[in-house]
Amino acid sequence: MTVSTADDELWAGAGPGSRRLLQAALAAFAARGYHGASTRDIAAAAGMSPAAVYAHHRTKAGLLFAISEAGHRHSLTVCERALAEETTPVARIRALVHDFTAWHARHHQLARVVQYELDALLPEHRNRITELRHRTERLFRHEILAGVEAGDFRTDDVDGAALAVLSLGIDVSRWYVPGGPRTPVGVGRLYAGLVLTMLGTSHASAAPAG
Amino acid sequence: MTVSTADDELWAGAGPGSRRLLQAALAAFAARGYHGASTRDIAAAAGMSPAAVYAHHRTKAGLLFAISEAGHRHSLTVCERALAEETTPVARIRALVHDFTAWHARHHQLARVVQYELDALLPEHRNRITELRHRTERLFRHEILAGVEAGDFRTDDVDGAALAVLSLGIDVSRWYVPGGPRTPVGVGRLYAGLVLTMLGTSHASAAPAG
Repeated sequence: MTVSTADDELWAGAGPGSRRLLQAALAAFAARGYHGASTRDIAAAAGMSPAAVYAHHRTKAGLLFAISEAGHRHSLTVCERALAEETTPVARIRALVHDFTAWHARHHQLARVVQYELDALLPEHRNRITELRHRTERLFRHEILAGVEAGDFRTDDVDGAALAVLSLGIDVSRWYVPGGPRTPVGVGRLYAGLVLTMLGTSHASAAPAG
Repeated sequence: MTVSTADDELWAGAGPGSRRLLQAALAAFAARGYHGASTRDIAAAAGMSPAAVYAHHRTKAGLLFAISEAGHRHSLTVCERALAEETTPVARIRALVHDFTAWHARHHQLARVVQYELDALLPEHRNRITELRHRTERLFRHEILAGVEAGDFRTDDVDGAALAVLSLGIDVSRWYVPGGPRTPVGVGRLYAGLVLTMLGTSHASAAPAG
C-alpha cells in the first residue's frame, strides 16, 4: 500500500477543501501544540481566510476532534484487517503487532498529535475518542487471552501484557524518524518478534512462515 | 524513598525561588505545551512578576532546558544507582527496568514535558540533552549485550531490543494515571518481568529472589 492510498483512506469522508484544512491543522498542532497554534495560523497554512475555515464549520476544537477521530478509526481498521487474514493466535498477534506498529511509524506525526493532545479534546469529543481507544484495547486483550487459552502464550497478567504491547506500538510515533535506519515494516517485524517472545512463545514456534 | 525526597534530588542545585519557578513552568508546559504557555503565565503561576523571572536569569527557553536537564540527569542517576546494587545480568536488567519504569510513573508529568518538547529546545540546549539521552541509551544497550554474552539473554538485535525496552519505560509517562489500579512500583515489577521474558530469559531463572 502506498502512502497516498493510506492517506486517502485516513481522510476518507473529508472533501478536498476539508482535507487540506485538516492537514494544515495537523501540521500546526505538530509544530506548536494545540494550545500554541491559532485558527489564524491554520487558515494561513491551508491557504484559506479564517472566514473560509468557519465556512467549513470548523473550529480549532472541531479540527482536533476530526484529526483524532480519523487517526483512531484508521489504526483500528488496520488492526481489524490484520486479524481478518490470520487464524492461529501466534499468527494473529504477529500480524496485529506488525501492522499496528508500522502504522504508528508511517503516521508518526498524526499519531503524536492524537496521543499528546487527548487532554485538549472537549469532554463530548473525548468520550467518543475514549470509546474508540477502548475498542482497540479490547482487541489486543482478547487476542492475548485467546493465545493464553490455546496454550500458545504464557502470562499471569493479560491486562498488563496488553498494556505493554499497545504502549510499544504507540510510542513508535514518539521516536520514529523517517529516513533513519529502520523502516515502518522493519520496526513492525522487530516488534512482532519481541512481543511473541515476551508473551512466552518459544522462538521456534514464533518464526515467521515466509 | 518518599516523593518529596525524590523531588529534592530532582531539583538539586535550584534554590527555593528557582525551584518554585521551575515547577510553575513545568505545570504551564504540561497544561498548554511549550508554545502555548507564555512567560507571563509562568510568572503568575509562580507568584512572581515577569521582571522577577528575568532576575532569576530565566527565559522560557532557559526554563525548558533546566527542566529537561533535571529530568534527564535524575533518570540517568536512578539507572546508575539501580545497576550499582546488582551483579548478574538478569538482576541488573531487572533492577534497571524496574527503577527506570517506576521513575517514569512517579514523574509522569515531568517526563511527558521532557519527551514531548524535545523539538522546542534551542539547538545548543538540544545538543546537551542529546548527550544525556545517549548515555542512558548506551547503558541499556551495554546491559543487554552483557546478558547476551553471558548466555542469559537471546536476541539477534541488541539495538532493537534496547530501543523497545527504553520505549516501554518512557511511554509509561504518557499513560500513567496516579490513583489508578497500578502503582509506580507495580508497573516497574510488571515491566521488569515482561522485559526479562522478551530478552529470552526463561521464566524459572527470571523469577525474583524475594
